[in-house]
Amino acid sequence: MPLPSEFLDGLRAAVGDPHVRTDAAALDTYGADALKRGHPPDVVVMPDGADQVSTVMKLCARFRVPLVPRGGGTGYTGGSVPVRGGLVLSLERMNRILEIDEDNLIALVEPNVVTGDLQAAVEKIGLFYPPDPASLDRSVIGGNVAECAGGPRAFKYGTTKQYVLGLQAVLPNGDIVETGGKVVKNVVGYDLTHLLVGSEGTLAVITRIILRLVPRPPVQSTLRATFASIADATRAVCEVIRARVVPAALELIDGDSLEAVARYLNVRSLAPAGTAALLLLEVDGLADAVEEEAARCLRACRAAGATDLLRARDDAERQEIWRVRRELSFALRTISPIKFNHDVVVPKGRIPQLFELVERLKRDYRLRIPSFGHAGDGNIHVNIMVTPGDEDEMRRAHEAERRLFEGVVALEGAISGEHGIGFAKAKYLPLELDAATIALMKRVKAAFDPEGLLNPGKIFPQ
Amino acid sequence: MPLPSEFLDGLRAAVGDPHVRTDAAALDTYGADALKRGHPPDVVVMPDGADQVSTVMKLCARFRVPLVPRGGGTGYTGGSVPVRGGLVLSLERMNRILEIDEDNLIALVEPNVVTGDLQAAVEKIGLFYPPDPASLDRSVIGGNVAECAGGPRAFKYGTTKQYVLGLQAVLPNGDIVETGGKVVKNVVGYDLTHLLVGSEGTLAVITRIILRLVPRPPVQSTLRATFASIADATRAVCEVIRARVVPAALELIDGDSLEAVARYLNVRSLAPAGTAALLLLEVDGLADAVEEEAARCLRACRAAGATDLLRARDDAERQEIWRVRRELSFALRTISPIKFNHDVVVPKGRIPQLFELVERLKRDYRLRIPSFGHAGDGNIHVNIMVTPGDEDEMRRAHEAERRLFEGVVALEGAISGEHGIGFAKAKYLPLELDAATIALMKRVKAAFDPEGLLNPGKIFPQ
Repeated sequence: MPLPSEFLDGLRAAVGDPHVRTDAAALDTYGADALKRGHPPDVVVMPDGADQVSTVMKLCARFRVPLVPRGGGTGYTGGSVPVRGGLVLSLERMNRILEIDEDNLIALVEPNVVTGDLQAAVEKIGLFYPPDPASLDRSVIGGNVAECAGGPRAFKYGTTKQYVLGLQAVLPNGDIVETGGKVVKNVVGYDLTHLLVGSEGTLAVITRIILRLVPRPPVQSTLRATFASIADATRAVCEVIRARVVPAALELIDGDSLEAVARYLNVRSLAPAGTAALLLLEVDGLADAVEEEAARCLRACRAAGATDLLRARDDAERQEIWRVRRELSFALRTISPIKFNHDVVVPKGRIPQLFELVERLKRDYRLRIPSFGHAGDGNIHVNIMVTPGDEDEMRRAHEAERRLFEGVVALEGAISGEHGIGFAKAKYLPLELDAATIALMKRVKAAFDPEGLLNPGKIFPQ
Repeated sequence: MPLPSEFLDGLRAAVGDPHVRTDAAALDTYGADALKRGHPPDVVVMPDGADQVSTVMKLCARFRVPLVPRGGGTGYTGGSVPVRGGLVLSLERMNRILEIDEDNLIALVEPNVVTGDLQAAVEKIGLFYPPDPASLDRSVIGGNVAECAGGPRAFKYGTTKQYVLGLQAVLPNGDIVETGGKVVKNVVGYDLTHLLVGSEGTLAVITRIILRLVPRPPVQSTLRATFASIADATRAVCEVIRARVVPAALELIDGDSLEAVARYLNVRSLAPAGTAALLLLEVDGLADAVEEEAARCLRACRAAGATDLLRARDDAERQEIWRVRRELSFALRTISPIKFNHDVVVPKGRIPQLFELVERLKRDYRLRIPSFGHAGDGNIHVNIMVTPGDEDEMRRAHEAERRLFEGVVALEGAISGEHGIGFAKAKYLPLELDAATIALMKRVKAAFDPEGLLNPGKIFPQ
């Protein structure tokens, strides 16, 4: 059904002709994200400012057109895909850093500031914005807030949630609300700020964000340890924690993933025979404390039976150690262009059981499932690889996916630690949440969006 | 109106006769909290376990009886006062530490575990639960969660919110829901956990809490600095932050408060002539880092014009420095037994303007207003003292209170950083939040409690 001309005229009047697009190229580009399973919108609108967003929202309410907010389009679960068509609201013009307040350790930004750009801006003056999703050079703060993005540093520094102090947001009825504020402590009314964080664009459109900053740690020390089994590597993680060290990064890479990187980079030594797991550890802070904590990490890895230990002596060696982690996503593409990239999470002591489950799935379903992730958080990326065109493998992959999620829930974990539910995982929500909790979430959704026009078809099973 | 006997019989059947009380002593005790402006309930019920809570909630729903949950009863804004009578649900029997999981850095507790008891239990094994409200030897985790309690350590470690991973809670319709879980990263559905934190017992009754723990910092160093003006002390706070130190405590005490402590303890030297402000700083962590950070703090205080500097050489001196802060509440009682104890918060760079406002209020309304608090967070306890029986002073105090809140909002602050709104501050909510935001919060309340039976009369202006 074509959109009414009165609606389109209203949009053009609100945001200006060039910022309302209905051409095929736009509908194609704005219909997909990193999930690669898209659906075209009917119109793409690029507003500048909360007032314009409000006008667009009111038009959508009046004409009953679904509205889907979009940031960097880097999500893995289709959060910004307009699965029911309608209007994609791209926030790309709202990309300014409005204020960096050094005394109050606060940044005020518009939603489409690229995360890495904000980090560079604050690091220049000795401050630090820790959340570091792998996509940080393309993903944007607004999207990070909507999905509650994590990253390697989350174990020590927490996820995006821990850095959001306040929001300006536009409700589906066009109301502009302000939540939280420029203060770290605020208990005035309900904490709508943290309800909006991670709500995947289904409750309100975020138009401004107040972020907390911290001092930049001056020194890092980076270590690499290899192990003959996942169990040994996990024991090392537990030993590190028992040594009362909280590393800024504590990444675990399994043998299959290492093998892929070794082949991709053509560096055989990256995956020596007998290596089932690699740990990448980084501690940061003041120089003396870093020295002490690095020593404790080395001792912990040794105690857990590390087969090889390396500590970076300079920044070049540090980058070399990180390179393996950074090239992982690219390396996996050499196995297959299709992967079900799952970001499951379990209490970290149960990582060995999670990997045992993955081993069973590999065997039972004859699948390649390289896995790696943030061991400190128990947040492991389990990548079920699928050969394009192989329908039988695809079916087996879907069965393995369901068993993975069931297993994770049985281990008291969660089916998503970073990527959210979107529409890709919506049908699995009842595996983790009981009926009463889902019903309550739907009532909360209705409190924000009684007509169900904002980002429909997400989170909840249809 | 007396409660129907069928209702009372149902309660007794649910929780057992001895745990349903209607005697005058119980109605008196459970009708008030630290605000000292109470209202008696009609019945007090002490359930043991979520199932019993659920049954009681269903009975209240059926007979349309208001229900008010109660933890330690140490709140300052009347959050646990049954202002419309009905049933007080005291969680005092649910006071067990269920699990301390050293590998996963998690504690699982029932709501009425005394905060200080949990801290002692985890510190014994080298772990740490940072939130430290002044009432920690009496207030309980459930109440801390309901109010999102803070304390001196919040600047470095965050408030209660940062430590709550998951909750079990009972809704007004009797549904038992589980939110969050035993993992630090979890983006499955809406973050109901952090919506419940700070909701002041108006959305659900919290029956179990999963808390995040961190390693206990092995070493502390405690400093005291005095200043000739509040502006100098605030400049020292900013200098500390610019030196990239985040102290575990950064407490500011004004001259009037010091004077009260000096008189109370009869130690004249605690408030030397010309001292307008005292800063108490504490840094913690590994020994070498603490040494470095303490040196930076001393330099920062000197640069800001400290008139006197002291660094504790041992635990006895540390306790002596802390003593002044700890005796403050008692000392203020020597001025008057009645105080309006406000916990306003401003961006920390604006603390001087906040104190200028307090000076104006003292002068304009002829009031004594000793003030002190958590300078790192900009969270200052402004104590408007009132002489019992002095109606005119009481009237002036109320006028000053309103002007204080208006001024704080104008400084981009919040009218409560720690104590919540309860019923004591409900009429001031519209000073800080606009109509659209309050309307949204009321819709969220209705999503949990459509009949308005759970802790009625709180947060929102009546």
